Amino acid sequence: MSKRVFNFSAGPCTLPLEALEEAQKEFTNYMDSGMSVIEMSHRGKEYDKTHMEAMALTKEVFGVPDEFEVMFLQGGATLQFSMIPMNILKKGEKAGYVNSGAWAKKALADAKIYGDAYSAWDGNEVNLTRMPKTEEIKIQENTRYLHVTSNETIGGIRMIEWPDVGVPLVGDMSSDFMSRPIPWEKFDLVYGGAQKNLGPAGLTVVFIRKKLLEETNRDIGVYLRYDIHAAKDSMYNTPPVFAIYIMGKVMKWMKSLGGLEAIQKKAEEKAELLYNYIDNSGGYYRNPMDKEYRSLMNIVYRLPSEELEAKFIAEAKENELIGLKGHRSVGGCRASCYNAMPLEGVEALKAFMEKFKAENPA
Amino acid sequence: MSKRVFNFSAGPCTLPLEALEEAQKEFTNYMDSGMSVIEMSHRGKEYDKTHMEAMALTKEVFGVPDEFEVMFLQGGATLQFSMIPMNILKKGEKAGYVNSGAWAKKALADAKIYGDAYSAWDGNEVNLTRMPKTEEIKIQENTRYLHVTSNETIGGIRMIEWPDVGVPLVGDMSSDFMSRPIPWEKFDLVYGGAQKNLGPAGLTVVFIRKKLLEETNRDIGVYLRYDIHAAKDSMYNTPPVFAIYIMGKVMKWMKSLGGLEAIQKKAEEKAELLYNYIDNSGGYYRNPMDKEYRSLMNIVYRLPSEELEAKFIAEAKENELIGLKGHRSVGGCRASCYNAMPLEGVEALKAFMEKFKAENPA
Repeated sequence: MSKRVFNFSAGPCTLPLEALEEAQKEFTNYMDSGMSVIEMSHRGKEYDKTHMEAMALTKEVFGVPDEFEVMFLQGGATLQFSMIPMNILKKGEKAGYVNSGAWAKKALADAKIYGDAYSAWDGNEVNLTRMPKTEEIKIQENTRYLHVTSNETIGGIRMIEWPDVGVPLVGDMSSDFMSRPIPWEKFDLVYGGAQKNLGPAGLTVVFIRKKLLEETNRDIGVYLRYDIHAAKDSMYNTPPVFAIYIMGKVMKWMKSLGGLEAIQKKAEEKAELLYNYIDNSGGYYRNPMDKEYRSLMNIVYRLPSEELEAKFIAEAKENELIGLKGHRSVGGCRASCYNAMPLEGVEALKAFMEKFKAENPA
Repeated sequence: MSKRVFNFSAGPCTLPLEALEEAQKEFTNYMDSGMSVIEMSHRGKEYDKTHMEAMALTKEVFGVPDEFEVMFLQGGATLQFSMIPMNILKKGEKAGYVNSGAWAKKALADAKIYGDAYSAWDGNEVNLTRMPKTEEIKIQENTRYLHVTSNETIGGIRMIEWPDVGVPLVGDMSSDFMSRPIPWEKFDLVYGGAQKNLGPAGLTVVFIRKKLLEETNRDIGVYLRYDIHAAKDSMYNTPPVFAIYIMGKVMKWMKSLGGLEAIQKKAEEKAELLYNYIDNSGGYYRNPMDKEYRSLMNIVYRLPSEELEAKFIAEAKENELIGLKGHRSVGGCRASCYNAMPLEGVEALKAFMEKFKAENPA
């Protein structure tokens, strides 16, 4: 086996090794076709099978009800910040946004360009340390949807209680996609970039309630139209073949582990291990977020000084614990423990944190 | 070595085997990092090097002058059909489109949504068998740019003479990208999907004249803004990492062959071989396009009957000559001979065509 580090990057990030090794093996000759999967026509039978299987597995593993269509798109969650209001918001309607951090802020900024969007709750008033309670969210009249970010990758907080505010939810789930079940009945649309829990960068997965497709706006360019992508099973134009192919393998891997429930349990176990250690480190490591809202995916922590943080990150890297630097906008450390991070990786990180603390008193 | 067919698909399509084998070898441990290239943070030093090298090689191999910026985007040429008028076209300005076939028609339809776009030449009047001569193109007053499609993948024709009409050109070069030099001085923008000559699907390469970036429209969503992507070296959001990585390898391969000039010579040689044979087949095989405008990339031909065409395609496949079916909208056969198709592949196809003709008289 080749060298393997524990990769705590926030995304792109660690993926299941067995999916990678399978892809490697068949890379120049997929399905005994004499071609690589990246050389195949997307209209051919081999790719068609791969594509439709990835779609079916995605719905199965995530427990997506029949009322939803899945789409495999491009442009990241970032393009969805525009496509959602473009497609869904009508003249005279408003869109509320839960401003819970860096990603929510970007989603709101783009929505304002394409419609009447407003902040329904501003997390800055609580220093972005938690998500809102339902009763704190202010919904204006004629609101079409409330946009939520299920997990803030940079801040390291996640939604616990899905808001119940009398309008459908639209959810950016990029950074905790498929780490817990979704109450689909509350949502009109769920989306996220694949490059955390699902697969490689360059693929955006969008779930949309089918009845919306009958009434989306049509005065927009063809790539930007949900109705077109959905009607063509996301093959209106050439899809991001390789990313979809790998995502199919990741879905198979999730299924083999026992599906969403097993994955969720594993995520809770890993996060608990780290948060417990942080909370019991005598203040050497500190997580500044509201305990109840702590992310299970992105575990942020500070050390006694920025100098110690820099030393910690550098020495961790020497110990093959990679990607522990916090986002440049907030500093500190961040251990992203996505679905494919094994428990052993988190245990190795905890052991290193103990050792570092002992060797570097505050 | 594993099984290898000759793949004449119109895109995604055959890629250089040495690039594929190199990618396979390092797939689970790139740059001895202990991670796959698809697991790495796009902000890390390994990916950054890969990304910037791919950009530099792209400009070098294609002979792109300093006045142009290169961008690695997503959404295919199809998203560019919207992004171009969104970014470039101002109120009161018009955009002319050379309607040379299926792709040009789509580009024009999207442009009409975002601005005052018109057909400056309609290829339907010549049955889509050729491209226009400069004097046939009707430019209206206040035209900002003329959009051209350098090669129509479905029709199998290409531009010979780049129109000289007093306004800058914008070129969709998806299907003959980097198969011949471009007169950059005539262009404001050149774009194309990567999935023909450049690499995997899921990457769109856009070259834009730098001075345009100062004056693009800004009242559009952030993913749709050229100025943002250019200012961030196409890393404003997570780029399609794997496709860019493979494209870097394809660029290295092109350079090692002697660059654009050598590639162009090879393309001419391969196309000549097939067209010569078709023209001298006593009418058994027929190419219906105007000789002067025949594509070097997508060589379309008909057989005496649709039954023979179906038989030809099926038997070719048994002989490991793949992807020869014409586009469903036009029927017939199509041999796409992109840069990575070796001369031996074209020779094998010609030999098969001879044999098939002998065995299946009209």
